[in-house]
Amino acid sequence: MSLIVQKYGGSSVADADRIRNVARRVARTRDTGHRVVVVVSAMGKTTDGLIALAHQVTGRPKEREMDLLLSTGEVVSSALVTMALDAMGYQAIGLTGWQAGIRTDASHRRARILGIDPTRIQDALAQDMIVIVAGFQGMTEEQDITTLGRGASDTTAVALAAALEADQCQIYTDVPGVLTADPRLTPEARKLKEISYDEMLELASLGAKVMHNRSVELGAIYGVPILVASSFTDEPGTLIHGSVAMEVRNKVRGIAHDLNVAKITIIGVPDRPGIAASIFAPLSAAGLNVDTIVQNASVNKITDLTFTVAQGDLAAAMALVQPVAREIGARECLSDAHLGKVSIVGTGIQNAPGYAARMFEALHQEQINIEMITTSEIRITCVVAEDRVQDAVRALHRAFELEKPED
Amino acid sequence: MSLIVQKYGGSSVADADRIRNVARRVARTRDTGHRVVVVVSAMGKTTDGLIALAHQVTGRPKEREMDLLLSTGEVVSSALVTMALDAMGYQAIGLTGWQAGIRTDASHRRARILGIDPTRIQDALAQDMIVIVAGFQGMTEEQDITTLGRGASDTTAVALAAALEADQCQIYTDVPGVLTADPRLTPEARKLKEISYDEMLELASLGAKVMHNRSVELGAIYGVPILVASSFTDEPGTLIHGSVAMEVRNKVRGIAHDLNVAKITIIGVPDRPGIAASIFAPLSAAGLNVDTIVQNASVNKITDLTFTVAQGDLAAAMALVQPVAREIGARECLSDAHLGKVSIVGTGIQNAPGYAARMFEALHQEQINIEMITTSEIRITCVVAEDRVQDAVRALHRAFELEKPED
Repeated sequence: MSLIVQKYGGSSVADADRIRNVARRVARTRDTGHRVVVVVSAMGKTTDGLIALAHQVTGRPKEREMDLLLSTGEVVSSALVTMALDAMGYQAIGLTGWQAGIRTDASHRRARILGIDPTRIQDALAQDMIVIVAGFQGMTEEQDITTLGRGASDTTAVALAAALEADQCQIYTDVPGVLTADPRLTPEARKLKEISYDEMLELASLGAKVMHNRSVELGAIYGVPILVASSFTDEPGTLIHGSVAMEVRNKVRGIAHDLNVAKITIIGVPDRPGIAASIFAPLSAAGLNVDTIVQNASVNKITDLTFTVAQGDLAAAMALVQPVAREIGARECLSDAHLGKVSIVGTGIQNAPGYAARMFEALHQEQINIEMITTSEIRITCVVAEDRVQDAVRALHRAFELEKPED
Repeated sequence: MSLIVQKYGGSSVADADRIRNVARRVARTRDTGHRVVVVVSAMGKTTDGLIALAHQVTGRPKEREMDLLLSTGEVVSSALVTMALDAMGYQAIGLTGWQAGIRTDASHRRARILGIDPTRIQDALAQDMIVIVAGFQGMTEEQDITTLGRGASDTTAVALAAALEADQCQIYTDVPGVLTADPRLTPEARKLKEISYDEMLELASLGAKVMHNRSVELGAIYGVPILVASSFTDEPGTLIHGSVAMEVRNKVRGIAHDLNVAKITIIGVPDRPGIAASIFAPLSAAGLNVDTIVQNASVNKITDLTFTVAQGDLAAAMALVQPVAREIGARECLSDAHLGKVSIVGTGIQNAPGYAARMFEALHQEQINIEMITTSEIRITCVVAEDRVQDAVRALHRAFELEKPED
């Protein structure tokens, strides 16, 4: 008999009807002969409501007690889903994070799971029970309640699947799975049947916010197959796993994008050791996140340096960079506040010939100017004008034939 | 340095403003040099809301998970009060019932406290912290969450005061203390400065619903002085304790009443062994609570038997009693659905001469007919017509000069 861990997000348990719906889905999985452990998020906007309540009491809520407060949301969901299953005649037990054996460090509001003692869950499974665990939370060695950060019920589910050596971790949410692009930008966007952990990480960080990277990384480390699917339909969803077969396929799997990009270019930078550090150290100290960095080939020991930041950070970054540029004798600082990024993602595409060329050609045919280019193992990214990002996503989706169903 | 346990009820922590108010009151107690442990109820109508939510999911919510669900209400309050104290610059820590060491049996929704391990609270107190405990809950040996029954945060507070050997347990609520009578019936009702545990138990069960009997009983057993006072004013409240000085005073301390009384009289009952059992066993089996029972002196082995039930139980009780009455050869069954009770309460009054006579005389002067009379160690109760209860309470309040301030 196989073991399945299922996770249902806040919108899937938002009210009594939806809770009963989740219970029916869990029951169906049980009926097909699987053992089932369920992880639930807080109902709908509960967590936001609790945060607002804390801020009504004080502008700076104490973090230890914020965790105590927020943890109650998921406990409510776990109790209610358990009641619904019990009412349907299923043996079920609801557990808080600490009752489920989830042990964390003491970093309140962003605790990391240190380990899981699965004894209580295993005992319940051995008694043929369905186990419903409150997501997003755990307990320190000192028996303090912690939470794992927003959206971390996914992490609870994948970590439990790893600890219990589950056959699959199923993440049920309000989207049908992982798509080839954002459907708001490309109506032709299509759901992927499967994707590798690495590809998923690139797609998530570049805009396809289906799952938190942290839980995908955890799945990759422990080799937990993760199915992402809708809790409102019976569509099959997308399987995230580490199959070798996929790696040799060398295909573009999806188009990621980011509409929040600004660029700073320092022209006429003397090309000598220590210059880059003198430019980026003050940005880092100010907590400004620098994304892509490109440095042109040096001509006569003079080069141009370009990097991107989030649009909201541009003014602060310019204020820090301009004095440094003067000090090192650079010619001038230019900026552009209205850029975006578009990326093709697929395992192996960087090393396979032709993908970059096809990408640039597709953008050229749409007369989209490429401002910057960066690549990673499984991704090629172009920075383009913000108002051309949508055209770029559509052109690339067509160029790499992503609308066509997988074999 | 003395140790005070304070309990704040649901209306005292109903919103962010009131939570800050509670924090200020706690802080003031700390500032006067006391160590403080605080017990809190769920905010306002939270518990009712959670019960309603469970009933939206299923008509018969599983009890273990009902406790898991309901326990979250008090945890929220404990987190928020702790945050408010922290924001005011006080060292404070919020604890769930299980974190506070409250161990119970496994009777979900009405668990009894088996013991308290005060180690964690004592450690926090030793570090000069204010400890805020979620009331109404505990944990079984199997690490399941339990609740102690409605209104049982009082019980948590008194039990903690006993375990910690606190100097006083202060119950803050939305009434100013224990009154000599219900002020809705007698505008002259006056707050008592002090009262014995036994008197408090009689006043509570007879209508002055200030505290649950269970927590008063616990206070009596462990000798915990309990102060009942308003959380909205700085009035001194009423001290419930076991002082000997009070016992010799032999005064009427308060007038209790109950407007929900119905009476059944079986006329012509053969006075032989086993008759009472044959009448009351079916009522008990049906879960109908019989209150006062009076049997007249037997004449020619024939007697009349009268007892009272709640008005809502009258029809069911009559349906059970009538066939039995026929079977045992009684003459007839009569009932009266519109009665009430009025009682004078005071330690020692049953054995002191004159109290009963003064009571009957006062009722007689108001032309109030006495249907039944019962007495206990510290109480004399008359059953009268429901529509004369208010007149009776006022007459007795005057007759025993309860409007006069205590020495």
